[in-house]
This record gives sequence, structure tokens and C-alpha cells, in this order.
Amino acid sequence: MTTQKILGNEVSAQIMEEVRLDVEKLKSERGVQAQVALVMVEGDPASQVYLESAKKSALKIGIAVLERRFPATITTETLVASIKVISADESVHAILCQLPLPSHLDEAKVIEAIAPSKDVDCVHPYNQGLLAMGGEKARFFPCTPFGVCELLKRYGYSVSGKQVVVLGRSSIVGRPLSIMLSTKGSDATVTLCHSRTQDLQSVCRSADFLFAAIGKPKFVTRDFVKEGAVVVDVGTNRILGDDGKYLLVGDVDFQSIVGHASAATPVPGGVGPMTRAMLMKNIFSAASL
Amino acid sequence: MTTQKILGNEVSAQIMEEVRLDVEKLKSERGVQAQVALVMVEGDPASQVYLESAKKSALKIGIAVLERRFPATITTETLVASIKVISADESVHAILCQLPLPSHLDEAKVIEAIAPSKDVDCVHPYNQGLLAMGGEKARFFPCTPFGVCELLKRYGYSVSGKQVVVLGRSSIVGRPLSIMLSTKGSDATVTLCHSRTQDLQSVCRSADFLFAAIGKPKFVTRDFVKEGAVVVDVGTNRILGDDGKYLLVGDVDFQSIVGHASAATPVPGGVGPMTRAMLMKNIFSAASL
Repeated sequence: MTTQKILGNEVSAQIMEEVRLDVEKLKSERGVQAQVALVMVEGDPASQVYLESAKKSALKIGIAVLERRFPATITTETLVASIKVISADESVHAILCQLPLPSHLDEAKVIEAIAPSKDVDCVHPYNQGLLAMGGEKARFFPCTPFGVCELLKRYGYSVSGKQVVVLGRSSIVGRPLSIMLSTKGSDATVTLCHSRTQDLQSVCRSADFLFAAIGKPKFVTRDFVKEGAVVVDVGTNRILGDDGKYLLVGDVDFQSIVGHASAATPVPGGVGPMTRAMLMKNIFSAASL
Repeated sequence: MTTQKILGNEVSAQIMEEVRLDVEKLKSERGVQAQVALVMVEGDPASQVYLESAKKSALKIGIAVLERRFPATITTETLVASIKVISADESVHAILCQLPLPSHLDEAKVIEAIAPSKDVDCVHPYNQGLLAMGGEKARFFPCTPFGVCELLKRYGYSVSGKQVVVLGRSSIVGRPLSIMLSTKGSDATVTLCHSRTQDLQSVCRSADFLFAAIGKPKFVTRDFVKEGAVVVDVGTNRILGDDGKYLLVGDVDFQSIVGHASAATPVPGGVGPMTRAMLMKNIFSAASL
């Protein structure tokens, strides 16, 4: 069996171009300049990578950026107050807050200061709730699961009526993905597995579509995959290579499933580039409300 | 195989007595009189049955009741404004709104007027979101799924590590139940099935615990059930009996699984009485915050 490689780079670039045109039209037709605010707290540079990359992408497609950086010593109260000011600012349509925050900050309180209508990362409980209630009224979808669904759609794959297994129950990927796939319109029959699932290989082997988001490098091998299944790798693990350099590897041992799965996403170059594109799509949605 | 009957009446009565003592203690030790507000709109009497029954139970165990009844002609704006007044009233700890509302009212707007800290029915998107995000920070659990989990617990059944199938994806029963069962602490591996699931019988037969909440009278028969499985019937369907009277039947054909399942909840007398008890527990929780 030939295994089709599902690649996110081209699709992601295509979506970015679509959003760029939408942003331009919003400006020329309604006079609205889309703007995203980035909220960062000094400290761990690694946790700022996502926001730095969002900044670059936004500017590239005509979205204005408001950057708010705070010293590591900031208190929860001050950060909450600052985010409330941005939430009330009508020129700002979307707010991204660096997560995780330094441990002395009350993350839940900070997140709840973001106006739900500007919560393009879909981290506010209100938006997670709209999603959990069936998604028909959801304003935003979390960017990574949203990107996964969009990538499959653009490649012509439909999960409707299929047996789907999602491996990993994190609140930003596994769980929202399992919800999105099983809502009306998607109509998959979804099993949500996790580290404590018994007989994990055989449960995974029942899947027509297997989504790996468990955060364990190359964890999913051929033994987990039914012949002809579609395998989507949402893992992004950094491991030390033989040459002493860090490598990005997924949750799936790609080589072991080649010739066995009917299609699969590699890491890097599969699902990864989709997250940023869907974030831009969410920012545009927020601006065009 | 003997099939154990899992009965909710006794357990429910026991929980009601526990809550009664808690309510009494809250009053004597902290001077707080627990109070629930009931919001009803004239029209369909059937949809008021739940609130009438809640009223009776609350008064029986020492919870005060504030009743607000509105004519069928009320507008969304007036109802929202009234609920906001109740939400701001510090003497009221819990708010129940009759659902479904008459169709001329915007139900989502009305629900969002309920303060999340008083939303003991767990219908506000904010509370559904806390649940969907893993449930560790959830203030309230929806009463029926909560009652199902509590009933199993008090009978000594644990779903941890087990294969669980939930049949039905409604936002008040099936989906929140599937989320609650698969969170850390519960640790079941959960498959959420629905009317469009293919090969439904065989998926259901993989379950160690099968939860039926699909709203189809006696839909689940022996063919759906693995030998020795535990079957929980969350269905409440009213059908016309041979004698011309209405009968309450579940989603499970109980007689067909006797001697085949290791345990099962009958309808009536199974899960049903638990909902009201858990509602009382939620009202107490709200009052004791």
C-alpha cells in the first residue's frame, strides 16, 4: 500500500493567503484594521516562541500587532487589570496571552480576564463550553484541533461515520479534538484514549482515523495501526539527536507505518504549520464580528 | 449470571439526608440560609415538572425557595434583566431556569444571564467549559451525569481503566457524561456513540460499562451488551401502554439483559431519583462557597 503524505505547509500557505485577502477586504470595505494584542511576561523565552511566530505571521498578512510585555515580577492583579484594559479596547480584536505563565501567577484568573469575544486561542472556559455544548454556537475553535480538521478536509478526507481514536486527553489538543470530531456535521464515533487506557494497541487498531497527541516521541508504531488507516500525528517532541542537536519528532514512528497506513502526516511538515494559519483565521473572525 | 439491580431510590434518599444535615449545619454554624430561585415562564406545564419537583425536594430538606413566574408574553430582554437581578441578590445562592423556554425566547441569552456561581444546573457555557477542560476546577457537574457517577460509586463500581461506551451525545447528558468518565480520577477509556455510528451493536458490545442516553425506548437489547457488562440506563421515554396509560420506559430493554449483564439500572427506580439528589447537593455547594 502506498502511504499518502498529508502535508500542512502548502495548505497552510493557501489559508494564510485567503486570510490576507479577507483582512484587506475588511479594511477597504468596512474600514476595519484587524489588530491582535500579544501579552507576554518576561522569564522563560521558550514559552514566547509561539507568540513571536504569531506576531510575524500577523504582520505578514496585514494584521496590526499590539505588544504588551511585562516584567517577571508582575502580580496577578496587575496583569488581570492590564488584560481587562485591552479587552475593553475596541481597536483590538484578538488577545493572545503567553501560556504557560510563570508559576507565581494565577493562570485561570488571567485567562478569564480575556474578553471571550477576543479569545482567539479558545482558552477561556466560556469558549471551551460553547465547544463542549456541541460546537454549533462556538465562536472560535482551538487552533491545533481546528487545523487538524481543516487539513483533512482540504485533502478530501471525511471522518463522518468512521471509527476514530484520539490518543491523549489534554485540554488544548486531545479533548477538544475528540469533541470536534464527534459533533453533528463531523459525525465520527470517537474513542478518547490516554496513558491509563488498557490494551491501548488493540483499541488504536480499531480506528479508521488515528490522532496521536500523547506527547511521547515515536510512541505509535505499526502495531497500533489498522492496515489502511489514516494517521494524524499532532505530537511535537524535542529530542536530542545522535549529532548532539535537537530534533523535532512526532508521537508517531512514521517510517514504521509507511506502506501500512493509507495516509499519514509527517513531523515536521504535517499538522504543525496549520496551527498558525488557523490562528490567523480566528483573528480575522474576531475582527469581522 | 445473576444481574444485580442498581437502584437509585435508597441512595438518593441517603444523599438527601446528608444534604439536609449540611444545610442545617450551614445555618447553625455560619448563619447562612441556603436559598434557590426558580424561574418559570407560563405555557407548557410539562416543562415545569422538573422545577416543581425541585421545589418540593428543596423545601423538604430546609432549602428556602424564591419563585419567580412570568407570563408567556415575556420578552427575552425582560427575562434577562430579571435573572440578572436574582444573580446579584446575595440571599439567593442558586438559580434554576425552566428549560426548554417557549420558542420566542432566546434561550442562550437567558442562560448567560445566570451568574455562573449560581448555575446549579450547569447549563452556562462557562461551567460547561470548566468541565470540558478536565473538570478539576469545575464548580458544578450537570445533575444527571453527576448522579450516574455517584450511584455507581456508592454501589462500589469503578470505571477506572475500563472500556466505556456512552450512547447519545446530548449536551445535558451524553456528552458531559463522556467527559466526566474520561477525566483524570475516573480514567475510563470512553467511546461516544450516536445515531450515525456505524456497526453500533458491535461497538456497544466492546464496553465493560454501557451508558444508554439516546432517547429511544427499549433500543438497547441483549445484542448490544457484552456478557458481564454493567448497563446504566439514563433514558426516560414516555410511551403509551396497552391499557391506554402512559408508561415510563428506559433506553434499555431490561428484561432482555437480565441474566446476561452483571448489573443494570431499571427504569423507573434506577438513575432517575439521583438527578434531584445531586441538584440538592449542587445547591448546597453554591450556598457554602
